[in-house]
Amino acid sequence: MTLPMAVPAPGLPARVRIHEVGARDGLQNEKGTVPTEVKAEFVRRLAGAGLTTVEATSFVHPRWVPQLADAEQLFPMVSGLPVALPVLVPNERGLDRALALGARRVAVFASATESFAKANLNRTVDEALAMFEPVVARAKAEGVHVRGYLSMCFGDPWEGAVPVPQVVRVCRALLDLGCDELSLGDTIGVATPGHVRALLDALNAEGVPTASLGVHFHDTYGQALANTLAALQHGVTTVDASAGGLGGCPFAKSATGNLATEDLVWMLHGLGIDTGVDLDRLVATSVWMAGHLGRPSPSRTVRALSHDVSHKEQ
Amino acid sequence: MTLPMAVPAPGLPARVRIHEVGARDGLQNEKGTVPTEVKAEFVRRLAGAGLTTVEATSFVHPRWVPQLADAEQLFPMVSGLPVALPVLVPNERGLDRALALGARRVAVFASATESFAKANLNRTVDEALAMFEPVVARAKAEGVHVRGYLSMCFGDPWEGAVPVPQVVRVCRALLDLGCDELSLGDTIGVATPGHVRALLDALNAEGVPTASLGVHFHDTYGQALANTLAALQHGVTTVDASAGGLGGCPFAKSATGNLATEDLVWMLHGLGIDTGVDLDRLVATSVWMAGHLGRPSPSRTVRALSHDVSHKEQ
Repeated sequence: MTLPMAVPAPGLPARVRIHEVGARDGLQNEKGTVPTEVKAEFVRRLAGAGLTTVEATSFVHPRWVPQLADAEQLFPMVSGLPVALPVLVPNERGLDRALALGARRVAVFASATESFAKANLNRTVDEALAMFEPVVARAKAEGVHVRGYLSMCFGDPWEGAVPVPQVVRVCRALLDLGCDELSLGDTIGVATPGHVRALLDALNAEGVPTASLGVHFHDTYGQALANTLAALQHGVTTVDASAGGLGGCPFAKSATGNLATEDLVWMLHGLGIDTGVDLDRLVATSVWMAGHLGRPSPSRTVRALSHDVSHKEQ
Repeated sequence: MTLPMAVPAPGLPARVRIHEVGARDGLQNEKGTVPTEVKAEFVRRLAGAGLTTVEATSFVHPRWVPQLADAEQLFPMVSGLPVALPVLVPNERGLDRALALGARRVAVFASATESFAKANLNRTVDEALAMFEPVVARAKAEGVHVRGYLSMCFGDPWEGAVPVPQVVRVCRALLDLGCDELSLGDTIGVATPGHVRALLDALNAEGVPTASLGVHFHDTYGQALANTLAALQHGVTTVDASAGGLGGCPFAKSATGNLATEDLVWMLHGLGIDTGVDLDRLVATSVWMAGHLGRPSPSRTVRALSHDVSHKEQ
């Protein structure tokens, strides 16, 4: 059975670039240590499934994210893959480590709210931006692509709903530092489609082009795919997702986290939007990874299709 | 924290009527017998949470759906509630039983595909329509509101993608029989937003007004809420959902089934759309019901909010 049937809708992009975050965002809060070889194989399989941007790891201090303390070992194991392999760098020290290994894409991570900046970076929003300034400047001088993650763009667990102008200000500041693209994060998953549209409209009104924007939705309240549809209707063509729905915000009460790449691909292919992804291979990859993590994938598409593709597991 | 923040989007309805199917569609495939008093209390709590249409039970032959064999006992226990309480009737015998108890809203259930008509009703599509003809005619003569469910409007487990004209034909036939409204069912959850829009456009082109259409999405592949958004953008104001995401299609491989009412309400309230539903009371109801069924709700919103409302459980 060839489903979903591709039925395009007017006003949507012909192609979407999926920024796959499973190997970094998906694994970073994982409690048991995942062997470096398993992480490398995960990245290889994600690339093999057709994903063109596979965020590989994070060069934060190992004390912050012990799960990704093997970044130095992991990155050279995958850096020869013919896909973009962005890595997180929180500061100049992290940038040094990433550049020394030949990384060509890095990402900094800011917060739209003071509460989360304090919790995540132990800095004010502006202090964090000041910390990123030399990171972005040096990366750009090296010809390295810089993504700016922005957390808590819609709601914050301490502050509630986040005013749109507050988000726009930090987005503007990240672009002014030299970021090539932004990822608008709904870190606790509370956004709804009108809010997404309002933020994108406000960013455009401040001169931020839609082409520089990616969206990063969490499925805590089941809203991620509807919000993605709203973003696509606005012209967004970069969507973050995590294979199998791995990961989640440690500040959210629910176990559910990132938008599952498979659920996203089902919708995009159903809309006739090209992603380059082989859904069966991706599902097989998530089933394989779920086996290593010892629990089933929260992705509904993975659950529904995993009987079909289990014979393809290697 | 008052979330979601209400941010309306242009072109959406001001109010949506949720057709709550948890007590019927949600429970009908439940293996262990749910006591009639629990079902009645479920219906009462759903009404108490502000749902104005609560499908109560089904007057099919008890051999078909043993779980709902207590329809005669249940219906009088809830019929005094000040909400609409539709019941399923497959044939004239079912209609007789429903009318004898004072039901004022009934629903027949047809299939858009021959395969499912055969599997579910042991009839061809047209033989099923012929069976419904006197049911609808007699209900209308009694002033009873008739809903027509149509299954497999997008995909079918045996036939694959279902051609839009095939669905339109059966919709037209159900309306010509006298049905007051239709519920377009994505029984196996394969639909995507462009397909939803294409079907609604085709129905309008055949003279079927959007006001007569409800949508009934399943979350098998995580698409239900994005599809609902597409339907709302088309002007649909009747959306079927199941409290806690109870139920599922026995023909789908996944455990996930109906769109969870709570996930729907989160989106609608986030869009500033009035539903009349008290989300906290609804979540508490689903947590209470999950306790009776002995497993957690698959609704992401229920999982995320259930810590907050558990103190409100009765």
